[in-house]
Amino acid sequence: MTDKIRSLIQQLDKEENSLFGKDPLLTWQLAEADLRALLLAAETFEELWRANIDTRLFRGGLAVSLFRDKSTRTRFSFASAASLLGLSLMDLDETKTQVAHGETVRETANMISFLTEVIGIRDDMFVGEGHEYMKEVSESLERGFEEGVLPQRPVVINLQCDRDHPTQSLADLMHLQRTFGSLEALRGKKLAMTWAYSPSYGKPLSVPQGIVGLMTRFGMDMVLAHPEGYDLMPEIDFIAQRQASDSGGSFTITHSMEEAFEDADVVYPKSWAPFHVMEARTRYLRGGLADKMDELEKEAIDNNSKYKNWECTEELMSRTHEGKALYMHCLPADITGINCQEGEVAASVFERYRVATYKEAEHKPYVMAAMILLGRFGEPARVLREALERGALRRHT
Amino acid sequence: MTDKIRSLIQQLDKEENSLFGKDPLLTWQLAEADLRALLLAAETFEELWRANIDTRLFRGGLAVSLFRDKSTRTRFSFASAASLLGLSLMDLDETKTQVAHGETVRETANMISFLTEVIGIRDDMFVGEGHEYMKEVSESLERGFEEGVLPQRPVVINLQCDRDHPTQSLADLMHLQRTFGSLEALRGKKLAMTWAYSPSYGKPLSVPQGIVGLMTRFGMDMVLAHPEGYDLMPEIDFIAQRQASDSGGSFTITHSMEEAFEDADVVYPKSWAPFHVMEARTRYLRGGLADKMDELEKEAIDNNSKYKNWECTEELMSRTHEGKALYMHCLPADITGINCQEGEVAASVFERYRVATYKEAEHKPYVMAAMILLGRFGEPARVLREALERGALRRHT
Amino acid sequence: MTDKIRSLIQQLDKEENSLFGKDPLLTWQLAEADLRALLLAAETFEELWRANIDTRLFRGGLAVSLFRDKSTRTRFSFASAASLLGLSLMDLDETKTQVAHGETVRETANMISFLTEVIGIRDDMFVGEGHEYMKEVSESLERGFEEGVLPQRPVVINLQCDRDHPTQSLADLMHLQRTFGSLEALRGKKLAMTWAYSPSYGKPLSVPQGIVGLMTRFGMDMVLAHPEGYDLMPEIDFIAQRQASDSGGSFTITHSMEEAFEDADVVYPKSWAPFHVMEARTRYLRGGLADKMDELEKEAIDNNSKYKNWECTEELMSRTHEGKALYMHCLPADITGINCQEGEVAASVFERYRVATYKEAEHKPYVMAAMILLGRFGEPARVLREALERGALRRHT
Repeated sequence: MTDKIRSLIQQLDKEENSLFGKDPLLTWQLAEADLRALLLAAETFEELWRANIDTRLFRGGLAVSLFRDKSTRTRFSFASAASLLGLSLMDLDETKTQVAHGETVRETANMISFLTEVIGIRDDMFVGEGHEYMKEVSESLERGFEEGVLPQRPVVINLQCDRDHPTQSLADLMHLQRTFGSLEALRGKKLAMTWAYSPSYGKPLSVPQGIVGLMTRFGMDMVLAHPEGYDLMPEIDFIAQRQASDSGGSFTITHSMEEAFEDADVVYPKSWAPFHVMEARTRYLRGGLADKMDELEKEAIDNNSKYKNWECTEELMSRTHEGKALYMHCLPADITGINCQEGEVAASVFERYRVATYKEAEHKPYVMAAMILLGRFGEPARVLREALERGALRRHT
Repeated sequence: MTDKIRSLIQQLDKEENSLFGKDPLLTWQLAEADLRALLLAAETFEELWRANIDTRLFRGGLAVSLFRDKSTRTRFSFASAASLLGLSLMDLDETKTQVAHGETVRETANMISFLTEVIGIRDDMFVGEGHEYMKEVSESLERGFEEGVLPQRPVVINLQCDRDHPTQSLADLMHLQRTFGSLEALRGKKLAMTWAYSPSYGKPLSVPQGIVGLMTRFGMDMVLAHPEGYDLMPEIDFIAQRQASDSGGSFTITHSMEEAFEDADVVYPKSWAPFHVMEARTRYLRGGLADKMDELEKEAIDNNSKYKNWECTEELMSRTHEGKALYMHCLPADITGINCQEGEVAASVFERYRVATYKEAEHKPYVMAAMILLGRFGEPARVLREALERGALRRHT
Repeated sequence: MTDKIRSLIQQLDKEENSLFGKDPLLTWQLAEADLRALLLAAETFEELWRANIDTRLFRGGLAVSLFRDKSTRTRFSFASAASLLGLSLMDLDETKTQVAHGETVRETANMISFLTEVIGIRDDMFVGEGHEYMKEVSESLERGFEEGVLPQRPVVINLQCDRDHPTQSLADLMHLQRTFGSLEALRGKKLAMTWAYSPSYGKPLSVPQGIVGLMTRFGMDMVLAHPEGYDLMPEIDFIAQRQASDSGGSFTITHSMEEAFEDADVVYPKSWAPFHVMEARTRYLRGGLADKMDELEKEAIDNNSKYKNWECTEELMSRTHEGKALYMHCLPADITGINCQEGEVAASVFERYRVATYKEAEHKPYVMAAMILLGRFGEPARVLREALERGALRRHT
């Protein structure tokens, strides 16, 4: 195990850490070397945990979380990453605080950061807002640090915004890497990111956008499939196209789930709300137009129900490469006959990949720890090596 | 102090730890040796704290709590145990998470446990549910560990269910042990667990059940007293009968508080709702029958009020052994003239034993720490000895 | 940096620590030596943090917070102080607990303190209550410790009550000390604590009372300015008068903002509700008189609006000493044209001092850490020196 860890750290050592002092808010703004470094650091943390090595790089200091939406797994992943690194978790709960009462973002960002090393934010409800908010926090911290208000510059982690979901997509990428053996092995593999039916409404776009925005960088043949009208943000298509072409892969859009599954190596069937619906919802919510909201929801659910056949069935799975494509999901999935009548995936398909999806999710705390490491330490490989060599045990044995 | 600690550890060393990898959900399913080991470990932790020794066996990792009911003392006890052991507390607040929205228990149990060492659960609202839920979590974790999803197998601690309240009853047992000198000294002592009047309604059965289910194992003469109709779960009577007979003690039920107090060495007067009322309440709550609920509450409170004379008065106390029985309570008590007009106990009786009841409660964090220790470490005595010999101070001096 | 820290600790070493085992609830009950010791300790902690020195004096144990009012900055300051010292934060959330349901304060204070080192309380809503509540908690802990219930005696920190706001006023004093060079340099400086207009209602009195109650001890010329009727608690005037006279400064009250600003070295313009309004509000709230409450609010807001000209404008600032008085605020400020139409301060004035007010706020976590240090350690200077000499790093480098 130690040999494997040493080798990971050695590979990390070769990359310049250009994420030091930066916030990795959108994966498509990161260099490929940054992505590789994040994966290597995350994998190292995961192995160090399994090898029972103490990786607390901090002895006190806060990890602040701000969730504008419900969350279990992301909340626990962030708490785990904080504990792994020796930070004390502190939740900025807007119902308990004055954030919503006229304080400027800048002021709050500084006030909560005097002894803070990382701020994790989930803000995915309104199109055009989450990412903008994170940028504002990021700039406020940068300036607070320059002005001498903050003794350190906390890193901001995007725990899901309206555009991207980097901790999810990077955990998914780790899962692909582990399943197929390496990043290089992904080249030429066909990944079908497809819409799937769900009885609920308004699921965020950040997962499919995050997958399309990240997986097109590794030479994969990415197919995005959805019923007509269920488009992602327009800029994502453009980014995916460019990245696929740069990486020697391809990016195509189809309105047929069957076509997407045909000979696919990986399938990711998941519901989302159309971009134009999310835009309208944002407009109505801001305007306080409850009637319009109800109308929109009804329309959207009615519209969804036309596509109940967009389900990941055994029949569809049999069309994939040797009938054995890897099924992926960010969880929780809408499983037909289990937690809904008709959903995204057939129960037998899900059950076959259940353990795999759990392992897919397991990478998240380590991805977050990696973001904190690279954002806060100029020489991350040295820092990890010293933790390994020190060899203090995480758990008494 | 160190000598006493050494001696406790030496005694613990003699017991095989059969709780390793197990969840001590109900005390009557534990071997007597397990109970002795838990008491020894709890007492050791308590002495180590008072001797200012650092007992953090973990350097990072989560202690997850899940409370489906209000709680102050249990919540703080669990947080204290987590801090004592070096774990970061993380509350699974169902109002903040998606647990109630169709996720399966199995999935959630795994998702919150990637870096988790213990999950403490309080679920005492519905008859027939709390314990079942804990078993489900327990089995999910077991399986998640076997499947390689979880790098470690968190121990599940019952912080109160519909059947038992082991951290309370074990803290109570520590209190008895300390008061009478040893477990052996409890033999032949008369303990009266009696119902008492409270103006409130629907207090859980888990405390009296826990006391009857645990204290009948040490050769005590246990008397359970309550007005007719205020029965506990049927299986508890059976368990208590068998245990009392096995341990050379006795178990009797009476409908007279006076009879129970007669020559008693220990009295535990506390209100609870009849089992059949709790069953009906569970049925109505599940069915969403608000009218039925209101009716039931009215009936139950009316019925309670027939038994206002079930109060632990000075007159009753004078009937106990030399008039000096130990008064016990899990707190908070309904004290006549203090926090209610008519309640479980007279103010002068309570005040005489107030400090004693506080000390009774003080054992709880250490009982929880003991459960974590035994559940997570194969050789608990060695682990405690090493903490003692290392001699790192908990608080700088 | 180390030399500066050594010098601070050396100065601290000269003071007898009379705060050991005491709760610094109101600054005007503390000796001047106590105040100096708190400032020295706070400054040392701040320098140690900036020098990246691990100052965790505890290895486990709880820091309990109880907020009866919304809070962002105080909440985060307390969490930061806890993390700095190695304590686990535990919030006593009254909505989650049974505090409000008939438990006595004494019992709860003991139940949450078995492994607790500090309890921080914010209770500023009702006139005549917050301070009384804190005293009750303080006495309960004292007695619990004497009775052997508590193995240690937690220190109680006033995070804002109806009378005083010591962590705020001491942070403000640190800011003054740093701005003017020393406590001695404050002698003869004119500080104008003045009311200012805010569109909101019922802001607590504890900030102006805390400023007047603390800054009159250092030979400053304190002017308190407010419209007629906007008095503070009567006893504060008396205390301020006495302290000003004892320290060789002065204390005057005026009803003209212009007069207060005239040649001032420091201005602190901030809204508050008149004492008699707070008293009436307390009465109505206790009586559940919602109608009366609405009426009172309307009246108070109407009354406020007569004094919209009480705004800290550029014109007023130009009247101050060389036009360059230090502007102070506890934040968040009501800034005209920024977060309200008409408020306490002109946007251009605030922006000029924005960074200064952030730095003013930055001292708070260290003031709280200092209170914990002095309350819990008999020889605080030695403890800090040992942390410095040990030289363990807070953050891996």
